[in-house]
Formats: sequence, structure tokens, C-alpha cells
Amino acid sequence: MRVVEIREKAVKLKSRLRNAAFSFDEMTTSLVAVVTDVVRNGRPVIGYAFNSTGRYACGAQMRDRFVPRLMREEALTLDPAAFDPDLWLKAMMFGEKPGGDMERSVAIGTLEHALWDAVGKIADRPVWDLIAQRYRGGQAHPKVFCYVGGGWYAPGKTIADLLDEVRRYLDMGYTLIKVKVGGAPLAEDLARLEAVIALLGDPSRLAVDANCGIPPALRPDYAAALRPLGLRWFEEPAHPGDFLGNAEFIASYVNAVATGENLFSLEDVRNLVRHGGMRPGVDIIQTDVPQSYGIGTAARILEMLEAHGWSASSVLPHGGNQMSLNQSAAFGYGMCESYPDAFGVFSGYADDLKVENGFITAGDWPGLGFERQSELIAMFRDVAE
Amino acid sequence: MRVVEIREKAVKLKSRLRNAAFSFDEMTTSLVAVVTDVVRNGRPVIGYAFNSTGRYACGAQMRDRFVPRLMREEALTLDPAAFDPDLWLKAMMFGEKPGGDMERSVAIGTLEHALWDAVGKIADRPVWDLIAQRYRGGQAHPKVFCYVGGGWYAPGKTIADLLDEVRRYLDMGYTLIKVKVGGAPLAEDLARLEAVIALLGDPSRLAVDANCGIPPALRPDYAAALRPLGLRWFEEPAHPGDFLGNAEFIASYVNAVATGENLFSLEDVRNLVRHGGMRPGVDIIQTDVPQSYGIGTAARILEMLEAHGWSASSVLPHGGNQMSLNQSAAFGYGMCESYPDAFGVFSGYADDLKVENGFITAGDWPGLGFERQSELIAMFRDVAE
Repeated sequence: MRVVEIREKAVKLKSRLRNAAFSFDEMTTSLVAVVTDVVRNGRPVIGYAFNSTGRYACGAQMRDRFVPRLMREEALTLDPAAFDPDLWLKAMMFGEKPGGDMERSVAIGTLEHALWDAVGKIADRPVWDLIAQRYRGGQAHPKVFCYVGGGWYAPGKTIADLLDEVRRYLDMGYTLIKVKVGGAPLAEDLARLEAVIALLGDPSRLAVDANCGIPPALRPDYAAALRPLGLRWFEEPAHPGDFLGNAEFIASYVNAVATGENLFSLEDVRNLVRHGGMRPGVDIIQTDVPQSYGIGTAARILEMLEAHGWSASSVLPHGGNQMSLNQSAAFGYGMCESYPDAFGVFSGYADDLKVENGFITAGDWPGLGFERQSELIAMFRDVAE
Repeated sequence: MRVVEIREKAVKLKSRLRNAAFSFDEMTTSLVAVVTDVVRNGRPVIGYAFNSTGRYACGAQMRDRFVPRLMREEALTLDPAAFDPDLWLKAMMFGEKPGGDMERSVAIGTLEHALWDAVGKIADRPVWDLIAQRYRGGQAHPKVFCYVGGGWYAPGKTIADLLDEVRRYLDMGYTLIKVKVGGAPLAEDLARLEAVIALLGDPSRLAVDANCGIPPALRPDYAAALRPLGLRWFEEPAHPGDFLGNAEFIASYVNAVATGENLFSLEDVRNLVRHGGMRPGVDIIQTDVPQSYGIGTAARILEMLEAHGWSASSVLPHGGNQMSLNQSAAFGYGMCESYPDAFGVFSGYADDLKVENGFITAGDWPGLGFERQSELIAMFRDVAE
């Protein structure tokens, strides 16, 4: 039960969205196919993954370093009774200096998810179930709360347009909505938020995301103006590496803050917990698991968080795809996210998954479940063949 | 005075060294050639750079993102009277999310150095002089103290071999030597250090480098055992992202600590200063300039350090090549480093630069001075043509 070949291909996201910090115009992602020597119904079992969204394709690193290092380790097995994600990671990390993680954490995490997908298919079990067995004493949580992210800025987009967008999300079954802030003057942002709160009827059903785009000098104004609104959370008020800036924002904003999608290692998430002013039970940590070395490292990060007084319910993985759904169902993360209007086939869940009163339920399908996303699985099969 | 074409090529370092954390067996670097529309003696002026050592080649990022973004900005000039490194950086950073810097900081910093090299050749002035004019009021320091790094571990290498190595460095004119620690049991490391100190006659002529390889549980033992030796500095006692671990080591070791070669952004160096226990005037900061966005960012980092009470004399750039020599001569950094036995043509300075009583003097040659390294410039010209 071994890897025979690993293929990868970079594709464009074809997105024209904009948040406070940057646009997605040129964004790409890497599709990975891990072909195994296990045959089912006359065809090889193949594991798939892609490198989530917001970070560029990383096929060169895979081809030059991580795939050859995986392939030369003959002892690396995909046997569901014997596989070890720590050995996969160790093999890929050969010859890597400490620190500077993001240059490799996306490629390694994506390959790691494809290996998990292969093991799940070989075991004929969902990856969320395998993860829960290995790291959480078998306790999985397949029914997962799922909020929806939207409210991007676009040229000519009015508050009426924003409300139409929010109504579409409500019609889809979502109950908690996130919109962007910091890409317009504060007064305009406030008007947008007040209109959405009026539509939702409850400010705790609205979160905001600044994507690190608010200049430090304006942060106190945003903290003071948005604090009385009683929003669910305020996301990325400061640069991801400005832990002190995050702590200072929290001190003046007081309400819940969420951040972490732009941290890529256990050490940096630990810095956020040590130096970022984050409060267990109040604030939210949002790493992207395939972008930060994968599921084995996510398990170690959760263990570190628990040692610092946090619980899995305060974690909300960045992503909005079958990978993050499997993670949330397995680790008991507080929720997952969804971007039905964004990133084309690279956002969203299995085609027949329905959101009901804000919840989705991870299917009992082998692997990560990409086979249930018809457009995406066609792209994966194109890479594999 | 514009860029006509940018070429790059990945080459192997061909090194078989080992420190406490990893080996260099597979290490590569990217050579960059920036071809300009300025013609001198019938040939185009070409700027060169490579991505320093210890981080892998990054040509894919250059080809896919940074080179096209530079090339489409028609206003970007290499005119010595009008060039602006901040605009080069802004152009290359289009469409990049905040944080996760190392995936792009090496490629961007390498391209930036090649652009500086081109401007220097167009201006017929050394890059160190251009940097000093732009950022330091014209005050350059071309005579630079230079220590030598060595003392790697190798199979079968004895203390006698180590002392032979140190004698070679002394014969070359170096007065301050750095050797590796943490790759052998502590007692063996102590015997190595005591032998070198006996040879040098003065412990302040010896520094040690742990390359983040000492397990946290062993750090207090190393701090207690090495503190009485009175070494010049102890380098990288903790993981680069473990700022608290660095602070704890400093608290028990007390003497000078050096770190920073595995931090790649202003934000992370600021975290080291904020949270790492580092003491201005005692400890040493060692970022690698071409690996962390380049000279413009180094100027901003120095400005940030000075605002925190540090001076340029406490900075020692990682690298050991014509790029770091230009940086030290320009910014007045405390010293530079040299690796005459390592990394082949990618370590060392101009062929005719002599070390005299520990000092080297940056030449008055146009650009970064790679033309004075015969083997290296032949490789660069091979990329350009």
C-alpha cells in the first residue's frame, strides 16, 4: 500500500474579488494526485488535494523537493493500520532549515491531505473518521456549524447589492454572515454594517473581516466605532506578524477577535497565543490546515492550544472546502466556513450537501469526499490521467 | 534606463556540510541576471544576484509572479538619479497576502539586489556607496570587520582536524572564528570549544552557532556550561519563531546571543526585539538581506531597530558574499561573515580581497562587485547569455 506516483498541476482561481488588503486576480492553486498501488474495481486508488485559497500554487517545491523525498522513502505506507503522518512529514522536511515555513508548509500540507485522502479511500472510511480515531479518541462531530463569508468590495457595489447578497446566503440556509471591512472609509463601512444588522435582526449573526488592511493609525477608530455594534467577531485587525498590534486592538475593542489564517506553523500560532492578547473562550484561531503542514501538525497545534487553556471549539479553520469540513468534523472545531460565491470550484462542499439552519453534516464517504464535487473531481482526474 | 529582460537559473550548491539542524546536500540557489537597455562598450549593462545560501532556489516564484509584475510596470527606472526600490517592491508585491513572507521574500530580495547591481553599474559606483547615499546620509564604512564561520561536524572529524581548520583561518588573516555546537553531546562540544579557545588564546575570539538544533530540554545545560567560557556570542539557541525560548535562554546564559538569519520580514525582526529578550548593545541581529526582501527592507528594519534603541553596529548580516559586504559597508553594520570552505563559489568575496587582521575593505568597483569573482561571474554570464 504505497505511493506509485505523485502528479501536480497549477490552475488559476479565476476570481475577481477584492478585500481590504489585495485582489485575487492572479491567484493560482496546485492540484495534487497521489496514485497508489492499491487497485479497486480495476483502477488504482488515487488521493487528491489542492492548496486551499489565497496562497499561490507551489508545484515547483513539490517537484524539486517534497515529492522526490516522499518517493525515496520505501517504508512509507498508506496501510490504514500502519500509516504515520509524522513519518510523511519527516521525510518531506529532510534538508529544510528551521523557520520561514510558508515556502514549504503549503506544498507539504497539500501533499499530506492527498495522502490522507488515499488512506481514507483504501480504508473505505471518511478522513474525518480516521483523524478522530488517531488524534481524538474516536470522538468525531460530523454535524458542523458553517458560516458564510462574503461582502467583498466591488466597483459600483451598493448597500442594496450587499443586502441582496446577504439575502441569497440566508436563502441558502446560512445563519451567520461575514462581510469585509477596511476597504472603504469607516463611515461607509459603518453604514454597510448597520444595514446588514438591520436585515439580520441580531448583530451576533454578523462578523467582519479586515484582512489586515486597516492602517495601524486607524485601528483605534475601528475598535471604538465597531465595539458597540456587538458583532460576532472582528477578523484580522492587524498584520499577522504584529502580535502586539493584535493585543492592543483587543484591549480597546474588547469583543471577540479572530485571526490566524496567515500563520503557517505551530511556532507562529504559539506566538499568537503567547503575545497576541488572545483570550481562550472568547477569541477565535483560524489557521488553514493544508497551508500549514497538514493534519498531523494541526493535531499538534490543537494539543499546544489545549495546554494553553484553549479548546477545539475556539478554532475555525480557514478554507471552506471538503478538507476543512473533514478537519472540523474530526477535531471538533467550533465551525467551518463557506464561500459559495468565490473561488469557483475551489470553494464549497460536496454538491449534495445542504446547509440547514446554519449546519452541514460531513458525509460518510471514503476519503475527503472530493468525488462528490462533480466539477472539481473532473479537474483532479484530469491531473491524475 | 529600463529592464529589458530578467533571466534566472537554479544551480546546486554542491555542499556536504552538516550543522546541528540539517545538512546542505540538496541545497540549490537561484542566479538572476537583469538585462538593461543601457549599453556600455557595445554590450548591455546586466545586474546580477543570487539568493544567498541555506534557502532553496525560487525561480518558479520569479517566473510566475515577480518578473512579470516588474516587467509590466513601464515607469520602473534604473536611472541612478530617479530609481526607487520601494516602487520595485510595491510592483512585485501586487496580489500578495500579508504574512507567510519566506515564500516570496527570497525571490524578491534576490531580484532587488540584481536591480541595485544594475543601477550601480549604470552609475559607475559601488552599491554600498549608493545605499549609503540613499539611506545613511552618504556615510559609508568600506573597511569592515569580517569573522569566519566554520567548525562544521563531519564523520570522523577529530579535535585535531578542527584545530587544523582554525589554523587555516588564522593564516588567512581572520581573528574571530565561529564553530558549530549542538550536533554532538555537550561534553564533546565542550572539549572542542576548550581546544579552540586554547589555540586562540582568548575566548572573545570564538563564537558558537547552534543552528536552532539544541532540544529545548538541553538548552539550560548548554547555557550553564558555556556561560563561564566567555565566548563572543552564542548563535541561534532556539527555534527562530520561539521568541520566548530565545528570551529564556538569554536570561540563563547572560552573555551575548546572536540570531535572526531565519527571520524574513520586518515584522518578525520586530517580534524578536519585542518578545525575544534581545538587549541593544549586547546581542546581535543577523538577518539575510537578499532573503528578506532586499536592501530597501533592510533600511526599514534598521530604522525600526534604531527606534527600539539599537544601532547598526549590533547587526551582522547573514550571507558572506559581495552582497552582504556591500550592505555592511553601506549601513555600518558591526561586521560581516565569511565561509571560505563552504558553499563553493557562493561564499566568499572578490578574488583579490585580502583579510588583514580581521578586516576587509569593500572595493570601489561599480555594482555589487561580482565581476571580481572570476568563477561566479562566469556562471552569471552563462545565465545572461
